[in-house]
Amino acid sequence: MRKVYVLNGPNLGRLGTRQPDVYGATTHAMLAEHLVATGEGLGLQVEVRQTDDEATMIGWLHEAADDSADVVLNAGAWTHYSYAVADAAALVPRYVELHISNVHARESFRHASVLSAGAAGIIVGCGVGGYDLALAHLAATA
Amino acid sequence: MRKVYVLNGPNLGRLGTRQPDVYGATTHAMLAEHLVATGEGLGLQVEVRQTDDEATMIGWLHEAADDSADVVLNAGAWTHYSYAVADAAALVPRYVELHISNVHARESFRHASVLSAGAAGIIVGCGVGGYDLALAHLAATA
Amino acid sequence: MRKVYVLNGPNLGRLGTRQPDVYGATTHAMLAEHLVATGEGLGLQVEVRQTDDEATMIGWLHEAADDSADVVLNAGAWTHYSYAVADAAALVPRYVELHISNVHARESFRHASVLSAGAAGIIVGCGVGGYDLALAHLAATA
Amino acid sequence: MRKVYVLNGPNLGRLGTRQPDVYGATTHAMLAEHLVATGEGLGLQVEVRQTDDEATMIGWLHEAADDSADVVLNAGAWTHYSYAVADAAALVPRYVELHISNVHARESFRHASVLSAGAAGIIVGCGVGGYDLALAHLAATA
Amino acid sequence: MRKVYVLNGPNLGRLGTRQPDVYGATTHAMLAEHLVATGEGLGLQVEVRQTDDEATMIGWLHEAADDSADVVLNAGAWTHYSYAVADAAALVPRYVELHISNVHARESFRHASVLSAGAAGIIVGCGVGGYDLALAHLAATA
Amino acid sequence: MRKVYVLNGPNLGRLGTRQPDVYGATTHAMLAEHLVATGEGLGLQVEVRQTDDEATMIGWLHEAADDSADVVLNAGAWTHYSYAVADAAALVPRYVELHISNVHARESFRHASVLSAGAAGIIVGCGVGGYDLALAHLAATA
Amino acid sequence: MRKVYVLNGPNLGRLGTRQPDVYGATTHAMLAEHLVATGEGLGLQVEVRQTDDEATMIGWLHEAADDSADVVLNAGAWTHYSYAVADAAALVPRYVELHISNVHARESFRHASVLSAGAAGIIVGCGVGGYDLALAHLAATA
Amino acid sequence: MRKVYVLNGPNLGRLGTRQPDVYGATTHAMLAEHLVATGEGLGLQVEVRQTDDEATMIGWLHEAADDSADVVLNAGAWTHYSYAVADAAALVPRYVELHISNVHARESFRHASVLSAGAAGIIVGCGVGGYDLALAHLAATA
Amino acid sequence: MRKVYVLNGPNLGRLGTRQPDVYGATTHAMLAEHLVATGEGLGLQVEVRQTDDEATMIGWLHEAADDSADVVLNAGAWTHYSYAVADAAALVPRYVELHISNVHARESFRHASVLSAGAAGIIVGCGVGGYDLALAHLAATA
Amino acid sequence: MRKVYVLNGPNLGRLGTRQPDVYGATTHAMLAEHLVATGEGLGLQVEVRQTDDEATMIGWLHEAADDSADVVLNAGAWTHYSYAVADAAALVPRYVELHISNVHARESFRHASVLSAGAAGIIVGCGVGGYDLALAHLAATA
Amino acid sequence: MRKVYVLNGPNLGRLGTRQPDVYGATTHAMLAEHLVATGEGLGLQVEVRQTDDEATMIGWLHEAADDSADVVLNAGAWTHYSYAVADAAALVPRYVELHISNVHARESFRHASVLSAGAAGIIVGCGVGGYDLALAHLAATA
Amino acid sequence: MRKVYVLNGPNLGRLGTRQPDVYGATTHAMLAEHLVATGEGLGLQVEVRQTDDEATMIGWLHEAADDSADVVLNAGAWTHYSYAVADAAALVPRYVELHISNVHARESFRHASVLSAGAAGIIVGCGVGGYDLALAHLAATA
Repeated sequence: MRKVYVLNGPNLGRLGTRQPDVYGATTHAMLAEHLVATGEGLGLQVEVRQTDDEATMIGWLHEAADDSADVVLNAGAWTHYSYAVADAAALVPRYVELHISNVHARESFRHASVLSAGAAGIIVGCGVGGYDLALAHLAATA
Repeated sequence: MRKVYVLNGPNLGRLGTRQPDVYGATTHAMLAEHLVATGEGLGLQVEVRQTDDEATMIGWLHEAADDSADVVLNAGAWTHYSYAVADAAALVPRYVELHISNVHARESFRHASVLSAGAAGIIVGCGVGGYDLALAHLAATA
Repeated sequence: MRKVYVLNGPNLGRLGTRQPDVYGATTHAMLAEHLVATGEGLGLQVEVRQTDDEATMIGWLHEAADDSADVVLNAGAWTHYSYAVADAAALVPRYVELHISNVHARESFRHASVLSAGAAGIIVGCGVGGYDLALAHLAATA
Repeated sequence: MRKVYVLNGPNLGRLGTRQPDVYGATTHAMLAEHLVATGEGLGLQVEVRQTDDEATMIGWLHEAADDSADVVLNAGAWTHYSYAVADAAALVPRYVELHISNVHARESFRHASVLSAGAAGIIVGCGVGGYDLALAHLAATA
Repeated sequence: MRKVYVLNGPNLGRLGTRQPDVYGATTHAMLAEHLVATGEGLGLQVEVRQTDDEATMIGWLHEAADDSADVVLNAGAWTHYSYAVADAAALVPRYVELHISNVHARESFRHASVLSAGAAGIIVGCGVGGYDLALAHLAATA
Repeated sequence: MRKVYVLNGPNLGRLGTRQPDVYGATTHAMLAEHLVATGEGLGLQVEVRQTDDEATMIGWLHEAADDSADVVLNAGAWTHYSYAVADAAALVPRYVELHISNVHARESFRHASVLSAGAAGIIVGCGVGGYDLALAHLAATA
Repeated sequence: MRKVYVLNGPNLGRLGTRQPDVYGATTHAMLAEHLVATGEGLGLQVEVRQTDDEATMIGWLHEAADDSADVVLNAGAWTHYSYAVADAAALVPRYVELHISNVHARESFRHASVLSAGAAGIIVGCGVGGYDLALAHLAATA
Repeated sequence: MRKVYVLNGPNLGRLGTRQPDVYGATTHAMLAEHLVATGEGLGLQVEVRQTDDEATMIGWLHEAADDSADVVLNAGAWTHYSYAVADAAALVPRYVELHISNVHARESFRHASVLSAGAAGIIVGCGVGGYDLALAHLAATA
Repeated sequence: MRKVYVLNGPNLGRLGTRQPDVYGATTHAMLAEHLVATGEGLGLQVEVRQTDDEATMIGWLHEAADDSADVVLNAGAWTHYSYAVADAAALVPRYVELHISNVHARESFRHASVLSAGAAGIIVGCGVGGYDLALAHLAATA
Repeated sequence: MRKVYVLNGPNLGRLGTRQPDVYGATTHAMLAEHLVATGEGLGLQVEVRQTDDEATMIGWLHEAADDSADVVLNAGAWTHYSYAVADAAALVPRYVELHISNVHARESFRHASVLSAGAAGIIVGCGVGGYDLALAHLAATA
Repeated sequence: MRKVYVLNGPNLGRLGTRQPDVYGATTHAMLAEHLVATGEGLGLQVEVRQTDDEATMIGWLHEAADDSADVVLNAGAWTHYSYAVADAAALVPRYVELHISNVHARESFRHASVLSAGAAGIIVGCGVGGYDLALAHLAATA
Repeated sequence: MRKVYVLNGPNLGRLGTRQPDVYGATTHAMLAEHLVATGEGLGLQVEVRQTDDEATMIGWLHEAADDSADVVLNAGAWTHYSYAVADAAALVPRYVELHISNVHARESFRHASVLSAGAAGIIVGCGVGGYDLALAHLAATA
C-alpha cells in the first residue's frame, strides 16, 4: 500500500480542547484513528504524527522524502514563518497544505503561507474533514 | 435532494483547450456531466453553469440565495478584483472557493482573493478533481 | 423639469433583503417610488434605475451625459475598482457619490473609492435617507 | 427642542476670505445665523461654534456628550491627524463628519480621516449647503 | 488576407466627443473606416469593434483565438484591473496593447496595466495614429 | 522627598465615565488621590495632573525638566502623533510611558507610539494599577 | 497558593554575561531565586524556567494552560516571529509580556511583537525589576 | 518699513538649554533681539514670537495674513504633522520654512514636512544663523 | 528636411551580439543605416547615435533642443533611474520613448520609467522595427 | 583667502534658457561672475563650475577634499539617485546642498535627496539668490 | 591552534542529495572532512557541525562564545527569520555568514538576512568552496 | 594564463585616505600590485583598474566580454542604482560582486544591490582581503 504521512505542527496536539469553536471537538487521537481508517478505504497506509518541535517536523519530512511518500501537512503557525519547514517540505514528492479553520477569516498574519507555492493542493477551512479530502485527493491522483 | 450550484467564471468555458498544462484536458461539458454524476452519488442535485459575464454570475448567486442553495464557486480572474461578485456570494448560505490550478505558484496577482474571507472552505490546486472534493465537503457537512 | 438620474449598481436590487442591519428594510421599488416623489417636491424629474451589469451602467451614464442630466450614483462594489464606470461618470455634468452604509466602518477595501475625486458631493452612511439629501443638494445648487 | 452642536475646527473662522474658490464667500457668522434658522425649521436647537484650539474642541465634545447632544463636526485639518479629537468625538451619541470642499479632489493627505469610522454620516464636497444636509439627516433620524 | 481584430473597450465609443483635448476629434466610426483602409494597404483584413461589456470583449478574444488572428487591443479602463480580459487576451496568438493618450502623464491608476506583460508590442500616447502603427507592426512581423 | 509628576493627556479627565469596559470605573480624582498615597508609601511626592491642551502638557514637561523630576506620562491619543509632546518629554530626566488599556489589542493607529524610543520604561494594559507599577519602578531605580 | 510561571526564552540563560549594558549583571539563577522570594511576599507560588527551545516553551505554556496558571512571558527574540509560541500563549488564562530592555530604542525588528495583542499587560524596559512589577500586577488583579 | 514675523513653535523657548549640541547656546531672547537688529539693517520690521500652543500659532499666522506680512516659520515638531498650522501658513503672502538643525541627519520622522510644498524658501541646518539668511532672502526678493 | 535624432543609450552598441533572443541580430550600424533610409522615405533627416556616457547623452539632447529637433530616445537602463537624462529630454520639442524588448515581461526594475510622463509617444516591445514606427509617428504628426 | 567651490550638476548649464518660470533668467555665466564678486565681499575665493558628467563632478569633489575647501553643491537631478556623488561629497570638509527651485513643490521624485543627511546646511527654493545665502552661511561659520 | 566552528543549519544535512543543481554533489560528511583538512593547512582547528534544531544551534553558538572561537555560520533558512539565532550569533567574537547558493538569484524571501548586519564577512554563492574562503578569511585576519 | 579583470568603481581611487576606519589603509596602487602578485600565484593574469566614470566601467565590461574574461567587480555606490553597469556586467562570463566594508552594517541604501542576482559569487565585508578570496574563488572554479 502506498504510504502517506499526515504531519501536524505546533499546538495541534491540543485539538478538541483549544478554541473548539474554531477547531472543533475532535481530539488528535480521534483524528489519527479516523484517518488511518479513511486511508485504508482509499488504499493508503496513513501515518499520523504531531509535534511542537520544528526539528522533529523537518526530520519527518526528510523521512518522507527518503520513503518517497506524499504528505498532508498542517504546519500550524509555522505556516507563516518557518522557511526551514518549507525547505524540508520541498524535498518530498508531493504535499497537500491543510488548515482546519479558514485562515483568511482570521488575523492577517495567517493569510500568508510560506508553503503554498510548492504545494500539490491546498485545502483550507473544511474543518477536520479537510484531512479526508486531502487523502482522497492524493489517492485519486498519481 | 439538496441542490448545489457549481458556478464557473470567465474563460472557464475554454477548459480543455486553454493552457492544458495548467488546467488539464477535461472540457467544461465533460466536467459538468461528471459533477452531476458525482452529486447524485452524494445525494446532491448539482447544477453546473459557466459565464464570462459578471452580471450573469451575480444573478446566479442571487438565485442560489433565493433557493438557499450552497455554491461551489470558481470565479476565475474575478477572484482577484470583483467585489461585486464577492458581495453577491456573501448572500448564499455557504460557498466553497475553488481554483483548479495552484494560484500561489503563478503570477502574484493571483495570490490575493476577494472571496476567501467569506468562504466555507477553499480548495486550490487539486485540478478538476477539486470540484469532487468541494461537493464531498458540502455533502458531508450541514 | 430638470432631470436627475439615480443609478444604483450591483446587488442593490437586493435592498430590503440583503443584510437589513446594514442596509435597512426598504426595498428598491419602495426607494424608487419615494425618490420620484421627493424629486417632485424639489422640482426634479427623478429616474431611478438599478443594474448588476457594468456595461448597462456605463450606457446609462452615457445617456445622462447626452441629456446633460446630473446623477446620484451608488455604484455599490464597483466603487472600489471599476475605472470603466468612473470614466463614464466623468462624462456627466455632475454626480453625487452615495453609499447607504458607512463604508469606512466596514472592510478596508470599502474605504477606497475610484469615484470620489470627480464627485460633486459625497454622502456616506446616512442610510437610504442619503438619497433624499443628494437630491436636495442637486436641487439647491446649479 | 433637541439640541445639536455644529462644531467647526481650525481656520474655519476664515470662511469667506480663505480660498473663496474652494470654500465659498459665506462668512462663519453668516453660516451660524443661517444654521440656527435651518435648525428651527427642523425642530432642532442648533448651536454653532468655531475654534482653532484642540483643547477647546475636545471640551465642546465633552459638553455635547454630557448633554447627550448630536454633533455636526467639521474638524478641518485635525480630521487628518488629531486622534485626540477623534477620541472625544467618540463620546457623543452621534456625529456627522462634514467637509465643505471635496477633500478627495485635493492633496492626498486630505483623503484620510481619523473621524470617518465612528461617524453616523459623512457629507463631503457639498459646499456650505452640506451643513443643511447634515442637520436634515440628524432631524430625520432618531 | 490575414485577419486582424482591433478591439476597443469601455467608453471608446465616445471617441470624438469625450475629452477631445485628450483623445482627439475622430469618432469611432471614422476610426473604424480608416483602419479598414489602412489594413487593406498592408494586406490585412481588419475588423474594428467596440464594446462597453466585459463579457463581449472576452467573447471576441475567444473568437480571435479560434481564428488564430492577431489583435490590437485598447482595453480602455479595463487595462488597469480586468484580469478576466487579460486571461482572454493571453489566448490569442499575439496582441498589441494600445492607448491613445499617454497614460503615464495622467492619473497614477492609469500607469499600471494588467495587459503589458503578455503583449507583443505596446504603443502609447501616439493618438489615434497609434492604431496605424500597431497594424504596421503586425503586418511587418510574422 | 523626590518629586514625580503623573501627567495625563486628552480625554483622561473622562476616566470612570468613558468606555468603562476599556478604562475601568475609577475617576481621575480618585486616581489622583490614590497615587499621592501610593507615592507617600514609596517615599515619592507625587503630583497628578490632567489636561486636554497640548501646550499645557508641554509646559508641565518643561516644569518637570526644570525640577529634574521624573514623569509618568499617559499622553492619551497624543501618543500616536504629537512629536511636540515627545520633544518636550525628551527634556525630563526619565519618563515612564503608560497606557491603561492594551493599545495593541485595539485600533491599529494605537499600536505606534512616538514616545516609546525615549522612555525609561513602558507599562501597557495593566489598568489603572499600571500607575502604581510605574511609581514602584521609579522608586526602585535611581 | 496561586501558581505563576515565569517563562524566559532564547539567550536569556546568558543574563548577566550577555551585553550587561543592555540587560544588567543579574544572572538567570539569581533572578529565579529573587522572583520566588518576591512571589512568596505576594502570595504567589512562582516557578521560573528558561529555554532556548521553542517546543519546550510551547510545552510549558500547555502545562500552564492545564494548570490554569498565569504566566510572565519573556519570549526573547521569539517575540518578533514565533506565531507558534503566540498560539500557545493564547491558551493560558493570562500572560504578561515582558522585555528587560526598551526594545523600542533598539533595532527596528524588535519594535513588533506577535504577543502583544493577546497580553494581559505589557512591561518593557524596566530592567530585571520589570519581573517584580509583572508579579505585582498579577497578584493585584484577579 | 515692511513687516516680517519670525514665528517659532513648540519647545523653541528652550533654546540655549535644550540639547545645546544640536541647537546651540543662544537663548530665544538673545535670538529675538539679534533678529530685530538684523531686520533693521535690512529695512525690515521684524517681530519675533514663540509659542507651544497650536491655536496661538494659527492666530499669529492669521494676523500675518491680515497684515500681508511675510513669515519666517520654524514650526518645530509641528512641521511633521500639524496640517492645521500648514493650512494657516498657506494664508500668508510668503513664508520661509526654517529648521535650526539638519533634520535630515536626525530621526526619520523629522525628514517629512507638511510645510515644504507651500514654502517660498526652505533653510535647514544652518544653526540660528539660518534666521539671518531667511530675513536676507525676504529682504532681497519682492 | 526636418531633422530627427535617434539617440541610443548604454549597451545598445552591443546590439546584435547581446542577448540576441531578446534584442535580435541587427547590429547598431545596420540599424543606423536602415533608419537613415527610413527617414528619407518619410521626409526626415535622421541622425542615429549611441553612447554609454550619460553626459554625452545629455549633451546630444541639449543639441536637439538647440536645433528644435524631435528625438527618438532609447535610453537603455538609464530609463529606470537617470533623472538627469530625463531633465535633458524635457528640453527637446518632442521625444518618443522606445524599448526594443517588452520591458514589462522582464525584471521588475524595468517596469518603471522616468521618461514616460514627458514622452510624446511610447513604443515598447516591437523589436528594432519599433524605430520605424517611431519615425513614422513623428513624420505623421506636427 | 579661504576657497569655496560652487559646483553645479547636470542641465544647470542651461540656466536662463531652461524653464525660466522655474529657474529664472540668469545664465550660468552671469551667476558665476556674480558669485565670485559676492565671495570677494565675504572674504572667500569662489570658484564656480558646472558639469553634466558624474565623473567630473566626483573629481572636483576629490579636488575640494584635497584642498580642504568647502563646497556649495547643486547636484541637479543627481541629488535624487547618485550615491556616487554623495560618497564623494562626504569627503569634503563641509558642503551646503542647494536647489534653486522648491523641489518639494514639484514631482515627487524630487522630494528625496541622497545628499541631505551629510549636508552642513540645505537651502531650497530661494532662486539663484540661494547661492548668496549659501556663501554667506559658509563665510559666517567656521 | 585557534579553534573555528563551522555551523550548518536546517536541511544542510541533505547536502549532496537536495537539489544538486543548486547545492552541488558534495555530502555533509565529505564537506566536514574537507574543512578539517583545510583548517589544518591554515593553522585552524575546525569543528564542523550540522543541526535542524534551533535550540541546538543556539547552544553551539553559546559554546563558541564561551570558547572565544570564531564561527562560519550557514544558518540555512533560519537566515531569513530566526532572530533567536541572530541574538546568539551576536555573542561570538566574529562570525562569517555563508550561503552556498546565490540567494539573491532565488526566491525573494531569501534576499533578506537577519544575520548580515552583525557579520564579520559575508560569502554568498561560491558553492561549497565558499567555506574554504571563509576559513581563509578568518585565518588571515585577527 | 587565464585573464581576470578587477574593476573598481567610483571613489575607490581614494582607498587608504577615505574613511580608513571603514576601508582600511591600503591605497589602490598597493592593492593593484598585491592582486597582480596574488593572481600570479593562482595562475591568473590579473588586471586591476579603477574609474569614477560609468561609461568607462561599461566599456571595460564590454572589453572583458570580448575577452571572455571573468571579472571581480566592486562597483562602489553604482552597486545601488546603476542598471547600466548591471546590464554590462551581465555580458561577461562570470563576475564576483565585492564590497570591502560590510554594507549591511551601514546606511540602508547600501543594503540593496542591482548586481547580486547575476553574480557568480558575492564577497562582502572581508576588507581588502576580500579581493584575494574572489580571485581564489575564480581560480578554483571553471
